[in-house]
This record gives sequence, structure tokens and C-alpha cells, in this order.
Amino acid sequence: MTNWFAIGMGSKNSKGDWLEVFYPKNLINPSEELTLKAKELVSYREGNFTSSIPSDLVQDIAKLSKNFSSLETERTVLVFVDSKLPPNDVPSCYLRLHLLSHRLVKPNEINLEDIFTLMPTVAWTSDGPKDPKELNDILSDKKINNEAIHIHSLDKFPCLTDYVVPEGVRIADSHRVRLGAYLGEGTTVMHEGFINFNAGTLGKSMVEGRISQGVIVGEGSDLGGSSSTMGTLSGGNETLISVGRDCLLGANSGLGIPLGDRCVVEAGLYITAGTKVEMIKSNSKVEEIKASELSYKDDLLFIRNSLTGAVQCKPNPKTVNLNEELHSNN
Amino acid sequence: MTNWFAIGMGSKNSKGDWLEVFYPKNLINPSEELTLKAKELVSYREGNFTSSIPSDLVQDIAKLSKNFSSLETERTVLVFVDSKLPPNDVPSCYLRLHLLSHRLVKPNEINLEDIFTLMPTVAWTSDGPKDPKELNDILSDKKINNEAIHIHSLDKFPCLTDYVVPEGVRIADSHRVRLGAYLGEGTTVMHEGFINFNAGTLGKSMVEGRISQGVIVGEGSDLGGSSSTMGTLSGGNETLISVGRDCLLGANSGLGIPLGDRCVVEAGLYITAGTKVEMIKSNSKVEEIKASELSYKDDLLFIRNSLTGAVQCKPNPKTVNLNEELHSNN
Amino acid sequence: MTNWFAIGMGSKNSKGDWLEVFYPKNLINPSEELTLKAKELVSYREGNFTSSIPSDLVQDIAKLSKNFSSLETERTVLVFVDSKLPPNDVPSCYLRLHLLSHRLVKPNEINLEDIFTLMPTVAWTSDGPKDPKELNDILSDKKINNEAIHIHSLDKFPCLTDYVVPEGVRIADSHRVRLGAYLGEGTTVMHEGFINFNAGTLGKSMVEGRISQGVIVGEGSDLGGSSSTMGTLSGGNETLISVGRDCLLGANSGLGIPLGDRCVVEAGLYITAGTKVEMIKSNSKVEEIKASELSYKDDLLFIRNSLTGAVQCKPNPKTVNLNEELHSNN
Repeated sequence: MTNWFAIGMGSKNSKGDWLEVFYPKNLINPSEELTLKAKELVSYREGNFTSSIPSDLVQDIAKLSKNFSSLETERTVLVFVDSKLPPNDVPSCYLRLHLLSHRLVKPNEINLEDIFTLMPTVAWTSDGPKDPKELNDILSDKKINNEAIHIHSLDKFPCLTDYVVPEGVRIADSHRVRLGAYLGEGTTVMHEGFINFNAGTLGKSMVEGRISQGVIVGEGSDLGGSSSTMGTLSGGNETLISVGRDCLLGANSGLGIPLGDRCVVEAGLYITAGTKVEMIKSNSKVEEIKASELSYKDDLLFIRNSLTGAVQCKPNPKTVNLNEELHSNN
Repeated sequence: MTNWFAIGMGSKNSKGDWLEVFYPKNLINPSEELTLKAKELVSYREGNFTSSIPSDLVQDIAKLSKNFSSLETERTVLVFVDSKLPPNDVPSCYLRLHLLSHRLVKPNEINLEDIFTLMPTVAWTSDGPKDPKELNDILSDKKINNEAIHIHSLDKFPCLTDYVVPEGVRIADSHRVRLGAYLGEGTTVMHEGFINFNAGTLGKSMVEGRISQGVIVGEGSDLGGSSSTMGTLSGGNETLISVGRDCLLGANSGLGIPLGDRCVVEAGLYITAGTKVEMIKSNSKVEEIKASELSYKDDLLFIRNSLTGAVQCKPNPKTVNLNEELHSNN
Repeated sequence: MTNWFAIGMGSKNSKGDWLEVFYPKNLINPSEELTLKAKELVSYREGNFTSSIPSDLVQDIAKLSKNFSSLETERTVLVFVDSKLPPNDVPSCYLRLHLLSHRLVKPNEINLEDIFTLMPTVAWTSDGPKDPKELNDILSDKKINNEAIHIHSLDKFPCLTDYVVPEGVRIADSHRVRLGAYLGEGTTVMHEGFINFNAGTLGKSMVEGRISQGVIVGEGSDLGGSSSTMGTLSGGNETLISVGRDCLLGANSGLGIPLGDRCVVEAGLYITAGTKVEMIKSNSKVEEIKASELSYKDDLLFIRNSLTGAVQCKPNPKTVNLNEELHSNN
């Protein structure tokens, strides 16, 4: 599906520019009837389209979301998004991030071109979202009046859980998962885990490492503490990294190639695309190849031989089993 | 000691199930007199026992904890815990976590069987603890009413410092230390440090690495930034890892064996139980052994030879000295 | 410049000791006229000097900072600081940290001797700064009254962004950057980044690693996820580490020498001062030297040969280019 219609509410800076938009789940692609009425009222044809909410629609929406009728109109927005097209404004960006986090689309399935340019940096504070340009004055006022305020982030992306609470997940430190992350049911993100927008896990998994933008982790995989997946945004390479099913990235390890299923990268070992690897069979070396040639291959174990210092790859003898008890997320 | 009696107060979800319980320190094993009166009033015999607070006890408690008499009874709880037995409900789990963090018991000294199954996942928010199932609606209401709310964690365990403030410690980012962590006096947990429940430090120490569940770190030791101790819950092995006194785990290093006293693991080196190690004496190799055979041995230095790539172990020439100034925690 | 005059406001514990002080930017070295009047009123001569605000000065200050006249006098403070001299009290420490974060002085340019001894550990809470010694009682009161409170840190240093919001930066998780950090314009600190006080970046840069106290990172450099710069406070060595311009520390790498310009340390490799390095030219080894001898040298690439396990250094063929889109901080 690439056509989306949603009703949201958000906040603006003192110039009237959108800072952020929240879309309640029941107002994302609501009933056919409501959608058709909205299309007609705003004369929608195709593509991306953002407008204020026609007053004739307010009562229909209020039936779905209580208190909606009391909303000030400048805080509400109506958007149509064709997710094949690049986003064109803040409400359109935020809807796309909601779609990912509500598991309505998977990472890399929708167009997010120029999202960094479109989305403003926001000061996420205990008093709600603020324009960073207005923040030094706000701080001064608060301190003078002896009132507490805490800024927990200065970022283009909010914390996932301030917008979407996916079912069946745990996120030990919410500041480490951005809105736009896709968390499969049964995912546990521990304190050291991180998931960027347009990235995530397809099913049950243990995340104590970093899932970079664009990276997808298959069901049953375990990313150990501080393990790294190379991103394509900054520093990294051009091949999109991914992790198959039932894989284990050991603690402090790193991954610069797309991994098949049931693979293990030993704790502390960083595999990049250019790493030369000794292929081992029955305890002897059969050839030397670049790690990139092992992309997507299943059942591999990567280690660094602790006596020779050589990076080696052999058939993976063990299967990874996630601790069932840890993943009963209630 | 394995017998505990405590009075606490907590919060429940809309179904009336406990989300969490707080026990003021002065209501954990209070006076003999109060304990005996409570035992009699609830006809306590032995083992684990949880009940509401008999009205005849409220005034006695109010003497110890002001305002207590104004508490609604459904928010209060009375528990007897035999810490040799497995916990049986949420109040019993939370008391055990308090015991650890108040330094009344050490890690691995009490029974925590099935604690993951018993404890519910809670949304820890700026408005207090909430049931995650009720959170999407709460978010919608808040956004509609333009009120701020921030979810800082979706986890079975709260932040230590929202329940217990141990004396003489610093914790730079409270989101990284769970209730149930044991922090010895003089412990500094820097921003990258992490301490799980039933884990911790016995005395003065610098923690910039991760202390996994069950892991104990001896006095005077320093865990460098992002250093890893292998846990037994997820991924890791079956031997419980520990760190002796006056040890140093270098930044980005990792440990998969129990370490003796005055040992050093070089920055960036990950030692697992299976790592084959060259034993070096007077600059020459005397034998090759598995790291697990070096468990609990004192005065060792682990490095990876930067020319041969071999992991080596030699007598540790230096003693680790924590920076006194950094550990004056006031 | 080493002479500073500022007016601030803060909070004290129940004994009347300062916990923290905030200085609005426009009250740091305000007009010559105001400074002269203040000097005269408090009979300032030279060096460090802290006092309450003379009542004759309040109206002059109120012109610069609205509501100032309504401040209780015990919450306000006036300081003169000679930043060549060691700080002598809490207000003097806090002014120095503000100077760094407002980019008025660079790291290592002012005297911060004994700052750890002078600054108290503070409980940074959703209700404002508190004395940790008073916190267990506060927690009990809040829980009894069913009011929410969240402690986000127990530290001598507050989060940068609760005091200073530098222009043109993003900080994904504010809990990872201390007041006293120096962030050059165009700096992005991702979730895994960390910047200590008296440390930072001189210009545009991407920080996903840890910048230890005293460490300076040149313009255009990229510190990959979990990369480590060795500090001199704890564990590390005595040479102050720095990173030149347009450098890349790969993810999970580490640095124990001062780096020149356009250098790369491969992902997962930790270089310490004592690391022996094979110097490679035209694919062959020309000599073996200690990494410390490569301090401040430009255009170097450090890798660990994945077949021999040897740490090698060769001329760096690539230049690092930060992603422009990521650094448009609006």
C-alpha cells in the first residue's frame, strides 16, 4: 500500500512553522467513508497533500477520537501521502515515521528522501517540544521563576515511545530509539541498544547493539552489547547492511556486510566488507576471500584466531536460542 | 539473614494488578515490636506472604513514615519474604530488589527465580508508572490536550534512583542502572556505565562499562568505557563472571572469565572462556592455554600482541590506582 | 581574556550551600558600565570574588533580564573570576563551565584545578536540583502522596542543555553531554556520543564516540559509534589526546595518541601509545615503531591486518567527507 490518509495534531514554533505532528493510530487510514468525505472536502486528487481540517469533518473525527472537537484548528492537520513520492513537508515526514513504527510499512519500503532537510531540529523538553532558537530564553525564564525544566534531546527525531507504543516490546532506555524505528513483536531493546528511524527488527530479538538507519534484523537474532552495524548515512559504505534470522553479533563486535541466517560474529570482532578472511574447513584453511563475498551466506561463524590473529570463517556449529523468559514481554 | 518484613506503597493498573511497589528504607525490617504485631495481626507463619495492611497497624506505621495514615489502602502492601524461596508476586520481587540496592543483601545471595515472569513490563513516564497497554490512549489524550508527557522507559525494572539513593555514589545517567543493582560506597557510574539488577560493585570503583546480571566487581576496580562483562541471561556462557579487586578492564575490552585480583585486560581486547592464550614469562612464550584456565588467578595482564596478533598473558607489573579526586563523592 | 564578571541564580540545599548556579548569557560580561558599577559597589580589586548582589545593582540587571527584580536575593550571586586562577567555590566553577559551553573559551584554556572537590554531587530531578542527602526523604514523600518524580542523574555536572543551548548543534540524548562541553557549530552528537566538560569539537563534526575530559576534536572529523578517546582523569595515560581535522575514528575503535589531520583508525582497532605498529609503504613493511611516535602526524591510516593480526600504518588514501545533509542543523 502506498496511499495514506491521516489526521494529526502537533505543535508549531512562534513563527507558525510545524515542529512535530502526532497521529493517533485510529486516525491513520480511518474508514473508507471518512477518507472519501475528506477527499471531497479538500478536493484531493493524488500525490502528497497537506491542509487544515475542514470544519465539516471535525464531528466525524470526534467520533473516533474523543476531545478532538475541542482542539484548536491551528494545531491540527490533515495529510494525504503517497509513500512512493518523497516527503514534502513536516506533517508528511511525521506520518511516514508513524507508519514505520506502527508496523504498517517495513524499513526501506517508503520514500524518505531529504527527510533530514525537511524535519526541523526540535528541543524535546519536559514542557513539550520547543524551537531550539527560543530555548535559551525559556531556560532563563524558568530559572528566574525557580521552575524546573529538563531538555532531554535536541534532535530532528523524537523518542519513539512519546508517539507510538508498539505491542509486545521492551525498551529499557527510550532515549535510544527514534520515532520511525520498526520493532517486531517480542523485541527487547536493552540500555545499550539503539534503533534509528527506518531500521529495526522483524520479530522477536534481543537488541543490545546499534541498528543503523536502513538496517533490518531478522527474527530470533541477538545483537550483543555495543555491537555495531555499519550505516550508510555517515562514514559507512554503500551496501545496505542486514542481519538474517537467528544470528548473534557478539558484544563489542561489528558488521559491515549483510549477514545470512544462523551466523555468528564473535565478541569483539569487527568484520568490514574489505576484511580478508581465511575460510576454514575441518580445521584447515581452504582459501582467503574478502568478507563481502560472504554476504547473505548462511550458517557462518566469524572469529579472530587468538593465536595467529587471522580473521577466520567456518561453518557455524551452534544455533542461537533467545532466552524465552527474557522475551516474555507481557 | 533471609527473613524480611516490609511495608510499601505502589501503583496498580486499571485491572487492579500491581505495577510496582516502593518500600521506604525505615519500613524494611522495622522494629521487632512492629514486626511481631504485624505477624500476629495477619497470622503469619512462614515463607512468603503478602497482604493488605491491617487497619490496626496503620497508626504504628504512621509514627515511622509521616503521611502514611493518609494513604489509600489499595496502594499499600505488607510483605513477608523468605529470600531463600523464589519470589511469588510483584511486591515480593520489588522488596528483593530494594534489599539489594539498600546493600542489605549482596548479588547472588537471594532467590530471584522467575523474576522476569513475575514482574510486569511498566511504562515509566513523567506522570508516574503506567500499564503499557493503556499508554497509547494516554498519549492521545495528552497530545489532544496539549499537555506534555515523556516516557523514559518501557521495562520490567525501574531506574534505581527513583526508588533507592545509595550513599556515596554518583550515577551520571540514571537510566543505565536498574533497581536491584548493588553499588558499593564510592562507586561512580559514568554515562557509558551500566549495572543490571543483582549485580554491582563491592566498594569504591569506576564503572564506565557494563556489569551484567549476576556479575560482581571487587573494590578498587575500574571498568573502562564500553567494556563488557559476559552475562548468563542472554548469549553468554554458564560460568558466572566476576572481577576481583584493583582490576582494570580497558575501554572497549570484554571479559568472559572470572578475573582474580590486580588483573588488567588491555583496551580493545575481548577475552572469552575459549580464547587460546600464549603465556609469556620473561618475554618468551612458555605455553598455550585456554583463558578459562586462568579464572580467578591474580596479577595477570592480558594483551593482544600488536605485531603477531596473538592474545598473550603475562604477570601484571602495575597496580591500578583509582583517581582519589574522582571518587570523593561527597 | 581571563577576567570575567557575571550575575547568576541558582539553588541551595537546606544548609544554605550552593548546589548549582545558572548564568544567563547576557549577564556574562555585560556592559562595561554595569561591570564598573558592580566593581565599585563590592569594592572588587582582583582575582576570584563571589558575593551577593548589592541592592543598588538590581534595577540595572533587571533591564537586561526581565523578572530579575523579583528574584529572592539568596538565590542570586555575583562573581568575578580570573580564569588563570583555580576556581574557589561553586559559583566560580559553574561560571567556568558556562564559559566553555558558550564558546567563550576553548577546552584547556582555563584553570579548572580541583573542580571535582569543589563541586557538590547533585540529584538532578524532574523537580529541579536536590541535595542527594535529602533525596530518600523526598522520594518517600512523593510516593506517599502519589506524585511523580524522576531522578535523571546523580552527578557533579548537569546536562549541558539544561544550562546552555549552543547554536547549530544537535544532541540526540542530552544526558550524554555535560555542562562545560564545547560544541563547535555544526556538531551532531548521536545517541552513543558523549562529551565531557572541558572537551569537545572545534567545528562541524559527527560524534558517536566518547570525547574524554581534555580531548579536542578538529573540524570535519567523525567519531564512530562507541569509539573511545583515552582520558587523563581515569585509567588513561598522561599525554592529552586530540584528534585533528577531517579524521575518522571507526566504530568501536579507540585512540591513545594525539592524531594529526586526515587520519583514519579502522573500525574495531584500539591504538594505544605503546602499540607497536608496522609502517607500510607500497605494500611492504619498512619499519616497526611505537604508535606514540606517530603522534600529530597527518594522513595516516591505521588498520589491523586481518590475515597476520599485525597493527599497520600506511598513508591514508581517502579523505573523510561528512554527510552535508546530516549536518544541516537548522
